[in-house]
Amino acid sequence: MAVKAPRGTQDLLPGVSEKWQYVEEKLKEISNNYHYKEIRTPIFEHTELFQRGVGDTTDIVQKEMYTFLDKGDRSITLRPEGTASVVRSFVEHKLFGSPNQPTKLFYIGPMFRYERPQQGRMRQFVQFGVEAIGSADPAIDAEVISLAMHAYQSLGLRSLKLVLNSLGDQESRENHRQALVDHFSPVKDELCDDCQQRLEKNPLRVLDCKKDREHPKMHDAPSILSYLNEESRSYFDKVKAYLDTMGIDYEVDPNLVRGLDYYNHTAFEIMSNAEGFGAITTLSGGGRYNGLVQDLGGPESPGIGFAMSIERLLMALEAEKVALPIDERLDCYVVSLGEEASLKAAAIVNDLRQAGIQADKDYQGKKFKGQFKTADRLAAKYVLVLGDEELATEQISVKDMETGDQKSVALANVTEHLQALL
Amino acid sequence: MAVKAPRGTQDLLPGVSEKWQYVEEKLKEISNNYHYKEIRTPIFEHTELFQRGVGDTTDIVQKEMYTFLDKGDRSITLRPEGTASVVRSFVEHKLFGSPNQPTKLFYIGPMFRYERPQQGRMRQFVQFGVEAIGSADPAIDAEVISLAMHAYQSLGLRSLKLVLNSLGDQESRENHRQALVDHFSPVKDELCDDCQQRLEKNPLRVLDCKKDREHPKMHDAPSILSYLNEESRSYFDKVKAYLDTMGIDYEVDPNLVRGLDYYNHTAFEIMSNAEGFGAITTLSGGGRYNGLVQDLGGPESPGIGFAMSIERLLMALEAEKVALPIDERLDCYVVSLGEEASLKAAAIVNDLRQAGIQADKDYQGKKFKGQFKTADRLAAKYVLVLGDEELATEQISVKDMETGDQKSVALANVTEHLQALL
Repeated sequence: MAVKAPRGTQDLLPGVSEKWQYVEEKLKEISNNYHYKEIRTPIFEHTELFQRGVGDTTDIVQKEMYTFLDKGDRSITLRPEGTASVVRSFVEHKLFGSPNQPTKLFYIGPMFRYERPQQGRMRQFVQFGVEAIGSADPAIDAEVISLAMHAYQSLGLRSLKLVLNSLGDQESRENHRQALVDHFSPVKDELCDDCQQRLEKNPLRVLDCKKDREHPKMHDAPSILSYLNEESRSYFDKVKAYLDTMGIDYEVDPNLVRGLDYYNHTAFEIMSNAEGFGAITTLSGGGRYNGLVQDLGGPESPGIGFAMSIERLLMALEAEKVALPIDERLDCYVVSLGEEASLKAAAIVNDLRQAGIQADKDYQGKKFKGQFKTADRLAAKYVLVLGDEELATEQISVKDMETGDQKSVALANVTEHLQALL
Repeated sequence: MAVKAPRGTQDLLPGVSEKWQYVEEKLKEISNNYHYKEIRTPIFEHTELFQRGVGDTTDIVQKEMYTFLDKGDRSITLRPEGTASVVRSFVEHKLFGSPNQPTKLFYIGPMFRYERPQQGRMRQFVQFGVEAIGSADPAIDAEVISLAMHAYQSLGLRSLKLVLNSLGDQESRENHRQALVDHFSPVKDELCDDCQQRLEKNPLRVLDCKKDREHPKMHDAPSILSYLNEESRSYFDKVKAYLDTMGIDYEVDPNLVRGLDYYNHTAFEIMSNAEGFGAITTLSGGGRYNGLVQDLGGPESPGIGFAMSIERLLMALEAEKVALPIDERLDCYVVSLGEEASLKAAAIVNDLRQAGIQADKDYQGKKFKGQFKTADRLAAKYVLVLGDEELATEQISVKDMETGDQKSVALANVTEHLQALL
């Protein structure tokens, strides 16, 4: 019996992996243009980090983590998201001490959540995200949002919707929290078990509940926007002004809450409007997390970031029928026959590769005809033929597969010849 | 109290992560030139895969795996190496059915082994590896070895040693195995506990023991090369002929065994000779694994591959003082003062970035002087200044930081102007 990949995980095979390479390269290039630098944190962290950094009342921490004991009896968790790890690293390596603030970081890598697998929701999935830590300037909120939007747009997505909200500062949140408790308490018994608990611990997250979405009290729940104090309102206005000046469209949705505990002020999501994209339309989300650095043992450092799923990005590209510019053709295929020619062919292929030219040959003992067929299937741009005659005269025949032109080239010059052609 | 990264793991921060990016890009480019395509397998697999695919008697499986139960009570293991996962994927997705054989794959990603952390040996480490599955042509063995050597050389390493051996086919191995048992059995009591067990289960691995390395019986242990049957000897001779024709130097070492159970025929290691590299000089290793595909439930498909640690590659680059060509300068820094200018600056920076130009601005409310200091620290190539005067005339001043030249440019043309300069 063959062993299979674990449920909720997938293999990315040739034909698909090139798309991932392309998208990831593009995201790195855009991050670089926005002057965000890469950080790589470990695949697993001490479990405590996520309990403190993601929030004990979140579904992620309560239900979805891959937590286990290592051989040293430490409680270890496969990272369910990237922000807590980046902030942990920011604190551990004292990045707040650098004169260049904010610290602008991006990451890309696998995350893990034990959920029921469905389209666009795998147990292992890849997130690209950025974090800007150390500035409370509304311009940086707009920058982070712009980066996310630009990433999608530059890959070719058009049907995008940016949804924006402010969760306010602590004072605003507390006033809103009380209003939510007052609003929902009379109907507490009608809410789901989770929401009854949320009402006590974190009533904001009642607004995010999938089960109680249709409850009549949901529709006229007090809006955070009515409870923003002047400072929070002014901050939100400035973020919008920066987005306006950058020409970025958005829609304000006071019910946008986000599933993580640590957000305040700016919160946003980017959705796909593409037809046939499927039920889960959120492509990415993020927000401001002033206070998180302190919660994780660092000095007061305001932060903002977002994360996007690469799987959903690829789904959106597919839904919008965007063709990524990936060249699948092979540069050169060297055809040869017999043991002596095969040795020579191996040397030629090796020389071409050292010179930066993509090249391949047969390793299956195929006849001439079979080798030509392979070259065809691989869409080789040039086929180099090394027959008995060529071998005797130290020549090789170079065939341009597009034009059909064929030319005899001295073996000693073949690399130069192809460098000029390609 | 701040949470730290788990023992044996590390954060890769800006300043270091660029080196990783450079090296990984180069490895992908070389893989592409050799016509190997990327495969990405999950971070964890069913534990059974490694028990069957790496070998129950190996240190990896017996001592070093991160194994745990997931929430569905499956035994899951963080992958300790890449070959078993790639072969599992090859079988699961029936890649043997493709007309293009051998299937040539590369991977790059984190692996996990619970060992005592030391320099060059982390609990989470990154391996780049290739696998060519479906050909028993000695030319492919040479190709795989050439790829590994070329990877190091093209990054600038010079002090390299390629060590080669043949472990023979099953018949040769069995004859050798018997000779080893006969050789060591009289002194069995003098060997370490592990070796006493190895002598019964897998006597070849006694040769690989670190504890018994100095035992007198080690030095005149029967060499596998004396037990190769004609077919195995001929195969090995051809591999060497292909390496010779490619101009690749090697040293044959009959004691090269490799720590994994699945190897046969060709086995190789690449070591660093660089001074000051440290105790662990092996940079990478690989070999042929005919039989593994069948062991994992697939059809008979011979394979060969290798894996290299990126951490050790970077250590070797450091030991040889190779400077990687990484440009750390910033393209543009936009200096502005006041809220109106800051909005305008944000729009300009945003436009530059959309045009593919790297740009940044201040988000800390710094004065002119502080902003210029930041631009200096970031080694900006161009500083764009947006003062009151510029704002009034819709101009921006562009300063070339290398020459000191300064020029006034219409705001509407600034992106084009910088595209021409960069």
